[in-house]
Amino acid sequence: MSHNTFGHLFRVTTWGESHGPAIGCVVDGCPPGIRFTLAEIQAELDRRRPGQSRFVTQRREPDEVRILSGVMPGEDGETLVTTGTPVSMLIENVDQRSKDYGEIAERYRPGHADYTYDAKYGLRDYRGGGRSSARETATRVAAGALARKIVPGMVVRGALVAMGEKEIDRANWDWDFVNDPENPFFTPDRQSVAVFADYLDGIRKEGSSVGAVIEVVAEGVPAGLGAPIYAKLDQDICGNLMSINAVKGVEIGAGFSAARLRGEENADEMRAGNDGQPVFMSNHAGGILGGISTGQPIVARFAVKPTSSILTPRRSIDRSGREVEVVTKGRHDPCVGIRAVPIGEAMLACTIADHYLRHRGQTGRV
Amino acid sequence: MSHNTFGHLFRVTTWGESHGPAIGCVVDGCPPGIRFTLAEIQAELDRRRPGQSRFVTQRREPDEVRILSGVMPGEDGETLVTTGTPVSMLIENVDQRSKDYGEIAERYRPGHADYTYDAKYGLRDYRGGGRSSARETATRVAAGALARKIVPGMVVRGALVAMGEKEIDRANWDWDFVNDPENPFFTPDRQSVAVFADYLDGIRKEGSSVGAVIEVVAEGVPAGLGAPIYAKLDQDICGNLMSINAVKGVEIGAGFSAARLRGEENADEMRAGNDGQPVFMSNHAGGILGGISTGQPIVARFAVKPTSSILTPRRSIDRSGREVEVVTKGRHDPCVGIRAVPIGEAMLACTIADHYLRHRGQTGRV
Amino acid sequence: MSHNTFGHLFRVTTWGESHGPAIGCVVDGCPPGIRFTLAEIQAELDRRRPGQSRFVTQRREPDEVRILSGVMPGEDGETLVTTGTPVSMLIENVDQRSKDYGEIAERYRPGHADYTYDAKYGLRDYRGGGRSSARETATRVAAGALARKIVPGMVVRGALVAMGEKEIDRANWDWDFVNDPENPFFTPDRQSVAVFADYLDGIRKEGSSVGAVIEVVAEGVPAGLGAPIYAKLDQDICGNLMSINAVKGVEIGAGFSAARLRGEENADEMRAGNDGQPVFMSNHAGGILGGISTGQPIVARFAVKPTSSILTPRRSIDRSGREVEVVTKGRHDPCVGIRAVPIGEAMLACTIADHYLRHRGQTGRV
Amino acid sequence: MSHNTFGHLFRVTTWGESHGPAIGCVVDGCPPGIRFTLAEIQAELDRRRPGQSRFVTQRREPDEVRILSGVMPGEDGETLVTTGTPVSMLIENVDQRSKDYGEIAERYRPGHADYTYDAKYGLRDYRGGGRSSARETATRVAAGALARKIVPGMVVRGALVAMGEKEIDRANWDWDFVNDPENPFFTPDRQSVAVFADYLDGIRKEGSSVGAVIEVVAEGVPAGLGAPIYAKLDQDICGNLMSINAVKGVEIGAGFSAARLRGEENADEMRAGNDGQPVFMSNHAGGILGGISTGQPIVARFAVKPTSSILTPRRSIDRSGREVEVVTKGRHDPCVGIRAVPIGEAMLACTIADHYLRHRGQTGRV
Repeated sequence: MSHNTFGHLFRVTTWGESHGPAIGCVVDGCPPGIRFTLAEIQAELDRRRPGQSRFVTQRREPDEVRILSGVMPGEDGETLVTTGTPVSMLIENVDQRSKDYGEIAERYRPGHADYTYDAKYGLRDYRGGGRSSARETATRVAAGALARKIVPGMVVRGALVAMGEKEIDRANWDWDFVNDPENPFFTPDRQSVAVFADYLDGIRKEGSSVGAVIEVVAEGVPAGLGAPIYAKLDQDICGNLMSINAVKGVEIGAGFSAARLRGEENADEMRAGNDGQPVFMSNHAGGILGGISTGQPIVARFAVKPTSSILTPRRSIDRSGREVEVVTKGRHDPCVGIRAVPIGEAMLACTIADHYLRHRGQTGRV
Repeated sequence: MSHNTFGHLFRVTTWGESHGPAIGCVVDGCPPGIRFTLAEIQAELDRRRPGQSRFVTQRREPDEVRILSGVMPGEDGETLVTTGTPVSMLIENVDQRSKDYGEIAERYRPGHADYTYDAKYGLRDYRGGGRSSARETATRVAAGALARKIVPGMVVRGALVAMGEKEIDRANWDWDFVNDPENPFFTPDRQSVAVFADYLDGIRKEGSSVGAVIEVVAEGVPAGLGAPIYAKLDQDICGNLMSINAVKGVEIGAGFSAARLRGEENADEMRAGNDGQPVFMSNHAGGILGGISTGQPIVARFAVKPTSSILTPRRSIDRSGREVEVVTKGRHDPCVGIRAVPIGEAMLACTIADHYLRHRGQTGRV
Repeated sequence: MSHNTFGHLFRVTTWGESHGPAIGCVVDGCPPGIRFTLAEIQAELDRRRPGQSRFVTQRREPDEVRILSGVMPGEDGETLVTTGTPVSMLIENVDQRSKDYGEIAERYRPGHADYTYDAKYGLRDYRGGGRSSARETATRVAAGALARKIVPGMVVRGALVAMGEKEIDRANWDWDFVNDPENPFFTPDRQSVAVFADYLDGIRKEGSSVGAVIEVVAEGVPAGLGAPIYAKLDQDICGNLMSINAVKGVEIGAGFSAARLRGEENADEMRAGNDGQPVFMSNHAGGILGGISTGQPIVARFAVKPTSSILTPRRSIDRSGREVEVVTKGRHDPCVGIRAVPIGEAMLACTIADHYLRHRGQTGRV
Repeated sequence: MSHNTFGHLFRVTTWGESHGPAIGCVVDGCPPGIRFTLAEIQAELDRRRPGQSRFVTQRREPDEVRILSGVMPGEDGETLVTTGTPVSMLIENVDQRSKDYGEIAERYRPGHADYTYDAKYGLRDYRGGGRSSARETATRVAAGALARKIVPGMVVRGALVAMGEKEIDRANWDWDFVNDPENPFFTPDRQSVAVFADYLDGIRKEGSSVGAVIEVVAEGVPAGLGAPIYAKLDQDICGNLMSINAVKGVEIGAGFSAARLRGEENADEMRAGNDGQPVFMSNHAGGILGGISTGQPIVARFAVKPTSSILTPRRSIDRSGREVEVVTKGRHDPCVGIRAVPIGEAMLACTIADHYLRHRGQTGRV
């Protein structure tokens, strides 16, 4: 079933394709009395917006968000206050150019969802990739901007930690640098910029593409969110990050490397904090034990595959079953993982906001 | 919220703790007319059952499943036929020994959910780990045995591909060997048995533990299951695998390694098959493109952390905030990843069964 | 939780308030390949539209619907074809006049949700009744227009059968008359028009209001939709009709009068039809037995209370707890039940469409 | 889809048929720390239990409930404390006598779900009515007994207010009399006992049956539960009451009679209470305005049809489409509405408990 909703109490429903008049989302279940400004939402959208460097698609979309429901004006004329009813947000598509997509109406692009759309629906809206277009993710970022306001004191940040064969040096990690105007990659490692730039220029010029790994971190999350199984906080984080286009793997804390550790290395020891709460000596758990938050930073990583929209000719078939070659022209990101950073942050923020409300509902403890 | 249900149309709700009188599950939404035998369900449970080698916990549980509802007897006196109403399955706990757990009532075991349970619920049933006990997973396996019957022609198998620092040689992959009585590890590589046995004996004797990586594969899945976003087949597979205790990472197809590939390496090329369907030249996608199944084998992997129940003393605190040392006695798996193989298969089978029904519901196309 | 979604597979999420820039809905899970025209959607909206006679509110809203996603153009330039992705529909609010609502910002109107909004949310968007405004129902009608296309051969119709103390004569029932331009009441009884007109003119001139009973009927619904309990077709019909503003009671078939019948009167006897299917001798069941459709017409009725927006002064309190009198000026329907007819039809259509897909999903039998 | 779950945060899943070994339910999402005794659950079950007077079925079922999970023993050895994990409750079927049901394997009983089961599932477990058996409702009562504990101060009671053509005199309403051992009807009117007894004896001796109307009332419900639309408290109450077997109509407060009222009669006026909260002068709203609780008693009524299991021969067809006559022997309630009283209370309690948690989740206000 094509169910375009995620979350249980803080629920986000998104709609829209890249070629239509607009895209949007409905955020339902937002607590009443949350205060925010349109500028705050827009600022998050601007981080994801295409066309900001030579390393991302040159599609020109202002991505101006409108809020159509669910808010009242605050006293200062700028602040908006949620009323507890659905918040509908809409972003117009400006730069559609659906003519770019003529050839792929008939040919299945390798690595894309063209064939599977036909297999599922028996028809396919070939104009711009339909729902699979990365454009849909703008609505997640808008919803996430609201989600950031739900848990008092929570800060959600993300960074690109690997691009293709190149990785950052974690010793250089500097959160302040991630959103620096000089940083087109959301990398936390200033030294990596030149490396990534050279590397990606080469790939771009070859008409190729490359994948990436993104790390997202939520600090200030109270202990107790989640559940032992099935509604595990890590389960929902993983599922929601996996719902982003092109993501092929997700991990929490030590993640796959935990499989190589021994029990005494992996388990995070505790000492007594001043407030009777534990102080953890490490964070292999990524802030989640038994599906429930520990109060440590929540740490997740996800792998984005290289976009399959490349200039190199690839073998495929068309809708009639004839063998063809496909070259994907158009305006594409050589590394779609770059712009996945604010998207991953948004999904993490939405997931935790939802669990915060669920925890409050069941236990009344926050 | 402690919601112990997964799936939309094929829905599984599980209940029970390791120390109580029984555990069980309710499988709701099963199509009517599905034929199976109790022996088939039991055979899957027997694969997960503890006490079958020195490499797994010595807890003695027969794990005999009873079916309490939702079926009619078939003509032959052995076959059961689903009626379309909820199938309730129950497994009694026989070997409880709750006295083993006395000390941990007060002390938070590092790496376990003890502290987070208290943080969430304000109280904790310390007898056997509560819902976080691996014992709960028996009910998933029972549900999965039924799920295997839903999609005609589907075969779901799994194997352990890495244990701690040791990996299998994929060149030796032999599905037939996985369930061989000589194979206590569910490894597909006959050569690896001696390696894993030596390695794990060492770890076990040191009172330590180690993690593992499991691969699960579903063959015979029709193209078209899933959705472009939010109800992506890979998203639900990942979330559901992540819901298994101790899992810290999940990936599909090339997974994290896709981040290191270029577009032309990663995208699976297609040639025309005899039936007009594509023949894919590779399967980096793991059988899923744009969230929708391609008809290729679905391939997922997940990482299981080492159990934190080890004999090495670890620093922690108790419920009063006092600093203590914790040693976890009792009967524990030195590598919980081994018995995770049939559990992972079950979760994969349940997820695909659910998507099969959802796809049929929305499109009427299967 | 303010969850503004209904349906499981055919899911409708609505958003918007009467005072904001727009209202809308997202229809998710619509099967691909459904063909319709914008004119068909608009025609349903026009039936619900205010301002069409002196008996309904004089608010002037063109209620022009725009479709923003989820469709492709058909071959003829007019037909739209659903793609299987979310269909977003938007209706602008034109005639807002929020100044009309000044006084009620502070005073709780008896019979309205003013006090309960404050009790729930701690704040209240007093401009036009917020989500409780009847304006929201336009989006249900739009969704229902699409739902009508899902079940092949299904026809959903509705009629007003009582207004205040006046009832129709069922012997005069004429479906063709319901939508006659001479009929401002959706009554199926031509004789009743003059009676209702006189009656309602009197009520309107007194600044009062009155309730109504609506009957909705779905024909052409295949036998087998629904479930024995919890997902009973009648349960979902009742819940969804009850979700309409101002509805205070719902019944199926003989409904409350069934409580006064004996078993032999109430149970509908069956004779053999030509096709091996039963021919029912009566329809006290309203087309649903044990929660599952029988193939007979589905018949439901719902009671709409009189609007509480009246000119007669009523005693109440304000937000500070002071005792006040309230007179509700503004443009109000003297009988909100009239325009509830197309809304009830829409909710019935959506409910059955959802169950049709659910039935197909679980059983594969349609 | 056969989804046997209701509720969002306080979720109840039931399973089982009357002819199988047992029936049961899983209550998921129950807050931790709720204290209760098994005797309290059993006391509610005993009120619904068959065989307690000549006016109800003579089936002999002790209906002893076992609790299999989700609780810890309290300090006193009798109290149980919920842990926040799923509470599984099981009731064995003792008096099955499936031989009673031989004939109806082939013949469709008029008024029963026999034909519709076949239409839905293509097969039917004819032994005892399957899920449609009133026996399933025992599990609802068990879940409801737990739900009564969730909202501090809430008291849920019910009474039979009409049986066939006979009604109680509301002037005689005495809650204390409802559960009096001398009262086999749950009537609140002592005078009505003789009337009902004579009436029902006549019906029973004729081998007939009759319907009833039940009223359920929840007091002590805080203002603010529910939502303006779609998650309206009255909507969920109505849907959940409608999910009870044989219910054909549901209403809130003035209900259907509200349709005959004028606005000034129907709207409940308010005066200032001592605490700044409103004192309502009447309760036509049934404690719910705009879908949200007012703090007044919640009042709902539902109509139960006469059971179709009667001795009078009725015309029908069999599975082969042949015309037959059907007489339903066996042990049946001449008025199934009587035992519906505790069932209706349970559904009301579960619904409000769920909304209490949802309200707390979204708003944090209770």
